[in-house]
Amino acid sequence: METDLVTAHEEMDQEALGLLFARHDLLAIPVVSAEGVLKGIVTVDDIVDVVQEEATEDIHKLGGTQALGAPYLEVGFWEMVRKRVGWLTLLFVGQTLTITAMGHFQDALARAVFLSLFIPLIISSGGNSGSQASTLVVRAMALGEVRLRDWWRVFSRELRSGISLGFVLGVISINVVVIHFRWGGEAVEHFGRIALAVALSLVGVVTWGTLAGSMLPFLLRRLGLDPAAASAPMVSTISDVAGIMIYFTVASLVL
Amino acid sequence: METDLVTAHEEMDQEALGLLFARHDLLAIPVVSAEGVLKGIVTVDDIVDVVQEEATEDIHKLGGTQALGAPYLEVGFWEMVRKRVGWLTLLFVGQTLTITAMGHFQDALARAVFLSLFIPLIISSGGNSGSQASTLVVRAMALGEVRLRDWWRVFSRELRSGISLGFVLGVISINVVVIHFRWGGEAVEHFGRIALAVALSLVGVVTWGTLAGSMLPFLLRRLGLDPAAASAPMVSTISDVAGIMIYFTVASLVL
Repeated sequence: METDLVTAHEEMDQEALGLLFARHDLLAIPVVSAEGVLKGIVTVDDIVDVVQEEATEDIHKLGGTQALGAPYLEVGFWEMVRKRVGWLTLLFVGQTLTITAMGHFQDALARAVFLSLFIPLIISSGGNSGSQASTLVVRAMALGEVRLRDWWRVFSRELRSGISLGFVLGVISINVVVIHFRWGGEAVEHFGRIALAVALSLVGVVTWGTLAGSMLPFLLRRLGLDPAAASAPMVSTISDVAGIMIYFTVASLVL
Repeated sequence: METDLVTAHEEMDQEALGLLFARHDLLAIPVVSAEGVLKGIVTVDDIVDVVQEEATEDIHKLGGTQALGAPYLEVGFWEMVRKRVGWLTLLFVGQTLTITAMGHFQDALARAVFLSLFIPLIISSGGNSGSQASTLVVRAMALGEVRLRDWWRVFSRELRSGISLGFVLGVISINVVVIHFRWGGEAVEHFGRIALAVALSLVGVVTWGTLAGSMLPFLLRRLGLDPAAASAPMVSTISDVAGIMIYFTVASLVL
């Protein structure tokens, strides 16, 4: 139905309704059927509650848990555990891929055990940058600022972000490696090469994390799922496996 | 000022104002000075915007970035990088503590390189459970459901949650370890002890992550800082260092 009036349609979801109010500064909105027949009215005080609840749901999901659906201290203990254990278990099972990834490189580790020093630092940097990207994209989608068709703009933007952020961490890491081996008193030769391997890995891992974190919400929405399932813990899990592969591959090339 | 009327005080922040509207289903609210003199009026359509913006800010912070303060695609590229690089760098520097932690256990790793297999799995489980806890607590605080004085109730609740969730992951991990060493064809003796070490570490790491994640928002608020700074990446970083210490300590006791 084309009209100059702002109206809500019966089939609109709560999120879209909230955006309509926010955009047009409305106090009330008539609800019409597909044929334009008036079905009722929604007032803005309902919308404050709806906007608040939608945000709470998204925040809970982005933290890697099911939405509680009730105030924290009023949810029963076992119900709360149940709402957390599902995602935690799923992520744990996904994370077992890191065992396989680490297993691939056991020989390299046995020969150069100092390589293990930098594993947590490198993989977590991918997770952190990925969490940033997914959070920004999920929220932008919820607010209607980013739509499915914008995926390429987001991709090229995040590719450049990832490289830039990885470059910054890479430069810092060179100092970290040098300080560690100098002050640590360990007689590791070629620490210049180690520093190079760590720095290059960081550029790769952060770029990968940023791209994975920003594209996952698009993939989920495309599949008809909730983009907010691209939680920080989920993006970290995806980044960890890739991070291990990138780090050992780069290290074996450089060292 | 005691009154039967719902009024807003001049010095109230936007968040508190939003909660007042949400709780009482108001359409407009008079603003009074500390002496009860009418200063003006706020209408609910302003509040929809405020509630939406406050939620966006918190979501951005929980993802480990500064609040963008503008739609994702409208923020300039370098400004966006600038808003992300600060936290990312800070977390990276904090994460370098994992190098020191890993360094402590290089001898153990050199003797038993298979221990490294489970490092990413174990430390990430602490980060994931900690993200869940911090996210739930930060949002509950923003909605006024949890106050500073509730810290002990939250602590005892999250202690039990952490042990329960850690127990579930621990039980699953026993199967994971057994399957890995059976199917992986590696002739590692005493894989029963390895499974025990991994499972016990998980209980410890998840309990620690959950407690750290739930208490950090209280600590931040107590210090007058924003609880939303207890982001998923920040909680992961704190959990990673502790996770490494717990894992190697348990492993050296069990093996």
